[in-house]
Amino acid sequence: MAYPNKVYLNGNIVDAEEAKISVFDRGFIFGDGLYEVMVQINGSFFYEKEHLERLQYGLQAINIDFNAAFLKKEIPKLLHAAQLTAIDCMLYIQITRGVAPRQHSFPQQCQPTVMMYAIPKVLPVINEINAKVLTRKDFRWSRCDIKMTSLLGNVMLNEEAMQHECYETILHRNGVYTEASHSNVFFVKEDVVYTHKANEHILNGITRIVVIELCNSLGIPLKEEAIAVEEIEHIDEAFLTGTSTQIASIQQIDDKLLYSENEKGPITKKLQEAFLKLK
Amino acid sequence: MAYPNKVYLNGNIVDAEEAKISVFDRGFIFGDGLYEVMVQINGSFFYEKEHLERLQYGLQAINIDFNAAFLKKEIPKLLHAAQLTAIDCMLYIQITRGVAPRQHSFPQQCQPTVMMYAIPKVLPVINEINAKVLTRKDFRWSRCDIKMTSLLGNVMLNEEAMQHECYETILHRNGVYTEASHSNVFFVKEDVVYTHKANEHILNGITRIVVIELCNSLGIPLKEEAIAVEEIEHIDEAFLTGTSTQIASIQQIDDKLLYSENEKGPITKKLQEAFLKLK
Repeated sequence: MAYPNKVYLNGNIVDAEEAKISVFDRGFIFGDGLYEVMVQINGSFFYEKEHLERLQYGLQAINIDFNAAFLKKEIPKLLHAAQLTAIDCMLYIQITRGVAPRQHSFPQQCQPTVMMYAIPKVLPVINEINAKVLTRKDFRWSRCDIKMTSLLGNVMLNEEAMQHECYETILHRNGVYTEASHSNVFFVKEDVVYTHKANEHILNGITRIVVIELCNSLGIPLKEEAIAVEEIEHIDEAFLTGTSTQIASIQQIDDKLLYSENEKGPITKKLQEAFLKLK
Repeated sequence: MAYPNKVYLNGNIVDAEEAKISVFDRGFIFGDGLYEVMVQINGSFFYEKEHLERLQYGLQAINIDFNAAFLKKEIPKLLHAAQLTAIDCMLYIQITRGVAPRQHSFPQQCQPTVMMYAIPKVLPVINEINAKVLTRKDFRWSRCDIKMTSLLGNVMLNEEAMQHECYETILHRNGVYTEASHSNVFFVKEDVVYTHKANEHILNGITRIVVIELCNSLGIPLKEEAIAVEEIEHIDEAFLTGTSTQIASIQQIDDKLLYSENEKGPITKKLQEAFLKLK
């Protein structure tokens, strides 16, 4: 992991080491902000419209008065300065409520803080990772549909995966699998694809939506239904989805081995190949 | 609400407008930090030891390698620069995991960011607020015992109180009242004081602990048991506790009026008077 060379901060482009915000920014004091991650592939941002719409949804949900469409004019300025115009890269966007003296409730007339940076990133044609994952109880809040920067819960759950040399931590709540610490999760059981419905217990990932559309177009039966913890023994395949993850086959869930090294399930493979054609 | 004049930032004292951190601080990117608020009364910090111990508990819980006792040497430097030595004031402390390129899991060799500021604040002898509160379902995470800066949930719940011209939002989870958006809550029913036990659904407030001790020393029966939502009709008194709130009588919970203007319950009053003597 490395820092970018340039950072967009409230309309200015600065070197990464010069990119500083007030300690009174509510993003720092309260985690009072949202973020998005998009990837540029072959000169355009993959599902840009959907990412910016989701950002707008979050802004409305937490009452930050900012028009996400404004970023469409600003992103090219950052890419130009970072010498990443039309180059495959990952773009990170963060909007916070802005700078104000500390008090929990929303300040009056606060100017949102807008921060963006891009780093070169070429996604693999197909994500060949065969992920080993662990499972944990989800102790995060119940508004996971909001892509907020108050992420300590996600951080702790992701760290657990790293400590166990796993790729991800899959979460369960009320006895069913919901999503992972920074990706969505799908299961395959008897040729039917299952994923938790898009409610307040998961982030409705853009790649998640794309995979659901792919299932429909490929005639693969899909149910937006959760898999219960005790059903895990009867799972045939499982995979993770996310902007950087794309579609990653899950090889092992806790002690349950789905596939030996380098193997993957037929439906996972079919979806990875169909996903590739969208890029 | 106003900004302080001076800010302590990683060993340096700077003017508030110069107090800036990297946008890559994990406090900004992930809400990956903790905070404490203490008040100085008559030249010493009220229950300082307990506040710093709680901070240390949080640091250990989220694996930030920092010794909270170090702050005892640093706080006087800040107070001196802010011309608040021995002056009644509120001290805010924030520790984050530090600055690193963005990835969820903990970075290697990251220096924690330490930020503190103090503002003059004279707490009332007795908090004469007769608080009107509303009740909401708690949708925050399940590790409320960690005083983290990933506070968007608390912010949203506190904002609801402000929108309804209330002092606080009292939260319920699994059918019982737990705490409020930034304070603890106590109820009195048939001369017994009730408050939710200190588990992962509440922050174990320092003032909460003090009030429990006061009940014991005054011979007021106290149970660390939750009050169920449906029991609210049978409540005689209720009050909030917190570092700035001290002990605040609750006058009205949603539509249920406990007291008319300027009245308060006898046990609440007794505790407020006993609390006053500790200062």
